Amino acid sequence: MRATVMYGAGDVRVENVPDARLIEPTDALVAITRACVCGSDLWPYKKMAPSETGNRMGHEFIGVVEAAGADVRTVKRGDLVVAPFAWSDGTCEFCRAGLHTACLHGGFWGGTHLDGGQGEAVRVPQADGTLVVLPRGVDGTLMPSLLTLSDVMGTGHHAALAARVGPGKTVAVVGDGAVGLCGVIAARRLGAERIILLGRHPDRIALAREFGATDVVSERGDEAVERVRELTGGLGAHSVLECVGLGQSTLTALSIARPGGAVGRVGVPQEASIPAAQTAFYNNVTIAGGPAPVRAYIEGLLPDVLEGRIEPGRVFDRVTNLDGVPDGYRAMNEREAIKVMIKF
Amino acid sequence: MRATVMYGAGDVRVENVPDARLIEPTDALVAITRACVCGSDLWPYKKMAPSETGNRMGHEFIGVVEAAGADVRTVKRGDLVVAPFAWSDGTCEFCRAGLHTACLHGGFWGGTHLDGGQGEAVRVPQADGTLVVLPRGVDGTLMPSLLTLSDVMGTGHHAALAARVGPGKTVAVVGDGAVGLCGVIAARRLGAERIILLGRHPDRIALAREFGATDVVSERGDEAVERVRELTGGLGAHSVLECVGLGQSTLTALSIARPGGAVGRVGVPQEASIPAAQTAFYNNVTIAGGPAPVRAYIEGLLPDVLEGRIEPGRVFDRVTNLDGVPDGYRAMNEREAIKVMIKF
Repeated sequence: MRATVMYGAGDVRVENVPDARLIEPTDALVAITRACVCGSDLWPYKKMAPSETGNRMGHEFIGVVEAAGADVRTVKRGDLVVAPFAWSDGTCEFCRAGLHTACLHGGFWGGTHLDGGQGEAVRVPQADGTLVVLPRGVDGTLMPSLLTLSDVMGTGHHAALAARVGPGKTVAVVGDGAVGLCGVIAARRLGAERIILLGRHPDRIALAREFGATDVVSERGDEAVERVRELTGGLGAHSVLECVGLGQSTLTALSIARPGGAVGRVGVPQEASIPAAQTAFYNNVTIAGGPAPVRAYIEGLLPDVLEGRIEPGRVFDRVTNLDGVPDGYRAMNEREAIKVMIKF
Repeated sequence: MRATVMYGAGDVRVENVPDARLIEPTDALVAITRACVCGSDLWPYKKMAPSETGNRMGHEFIGVVEAAGADVRTVKRGDLVVAPFAWSDGTCEFCRAGLHTACLHGGFWGGTHLDGGQGEAVRVPQADGTLVVLPRGVDGTLMPSLLTLSDVMGTGHHAALAARVGPGKTVAVVGDGAVGLCGVIAARRLGAERIILLGRHPDRIALAREFGATDVVSERGDEAVERVRELTGGLGAHSVLECVGLGQSTLTALSIARPGGAVGRVGVPQEASIPAAQTAFYNNVTIAGGPAPVRAYIEGLLPDVLEGRIEPGRVFDRVTNLDGVPDGYRAMNEREAIKVMIKF
């Protein structure tokens, strides 16, 4: 079969790889129908050291079950399924607590030993715990939004929960990428009164406003902090969603949180330490978040997608086929596209 | 009057200063009966740059109201009062939210402009919001425990709340100083099933066990992390109380929290950044805490002290008078004493 392999920074190839197949009795084999490129894929795209073997890529997908192992109970051949960006057994202590990204028997797609979503098919370990079956005959126009349940919509939701968004709160979202935009959707869905987007790209800002952003701050660094303070009566935001992962964006996030507020971070951290330890401390600002347990959120968000109350699929502004994946990386990296969907 | 002034690292003097007196109509004048030296006073004792004017010291005290300004309603001459380590109006947005250490019209004792608790008397700004009147005729043997409501007991409680301690949880307390020991009391009071103290001083460990610690880890660094993992089935603690403030102790705290757990930090951070940003992120560990709003906790903890259910005053293992304060700093700095009480 054909799949996407990254061999180093900027070196993404679509090539022949061994066919995905069942190995464990708890596996399912899924033929991919939709996948996409993630903002987090851009970190290795910028930095990955050259590799002989390469890493299989992609962790967001919808597909059709082609086969299921003997122990699989909840999915069967022909089911249309959505996969979270981490696989999990659904039964361990952490899964039961809703933290599927810490599953004791789970893991992440791709790399050197597992299939990735940016390919024709995937072996899904722990299929019962991992996959969610979508309704039969679901409207095809909903596919982009359903695909965001794999990652970005659930990740934005996780950031909002970690930042303790709730009715009446003032929320700031740092980052106007697909996750930040989904963070805006999540904040509005959870009842935020005011949503300040920190971003600079006109197309993304326009979409954020449609998703519910009430204010936009396009300055950076100290000026951004100053602007948010002005907008919040000098106090800062109750809840801040950090959707980038850089030291600078984290510093901004911690600096615009009001005393007693919370920062929910979902941008994969690119540095070994968190800045502003003392600012956060003296303000009693809580720092929470991490890899979103999107598996825990799919059932809750699904009705809102199916009934059109939220449209996170609008973050996809480019569609390609498998051969177009390398150019999709390039387009996202150069900020030509917000997020690229792959249609099989 | 006489009061404690610090002029630089290791340079603590008791000397004549201008008498404390009422200035604002919202002030009270309090004659100190009990005060103490705080672990956080040891940071300037180790590091303070030489100063011509010096800083007035002390932020924990019990005393008798000698006079109250015209606008003061809740305390009057003759009342025995306990003061939290920060003064606050009790009415602003943050006070109403229970975060008195972020009071919009509050502040901290001592320094160059305000009286400190390690002196004969204190002008108390915002007396109505700040002071808590103790019952008439309270048993004198309870004074040490009542004094801890100024800071260390409330701070241990804040660490426990920030770390989300609750019934059935496994808790780790990093640091065996007075705050760590009060953290053990707080964790037990909030229902923790297991309380692991990380500390190395036999006298403190013995007290921690009496306060409710079920396990002790005296290793440091990676070995301490390993030991806590062994004690927790490889998973780590649900709740970790960081009661030191150093980079190393914070690293340990973040490394022993289980996925989805929380670190409540109350040790004043001595470094500009928080280590292990990625470990905390990948484990979805929440980092919370800061200066404890002890004013918010006094009424809740007071009955437990008055009825003897908790005895945080046992952290005082040395008593001195005002002249003995400089030696009290030395004794605490050299770990000869856990915490020194000053009796007037």
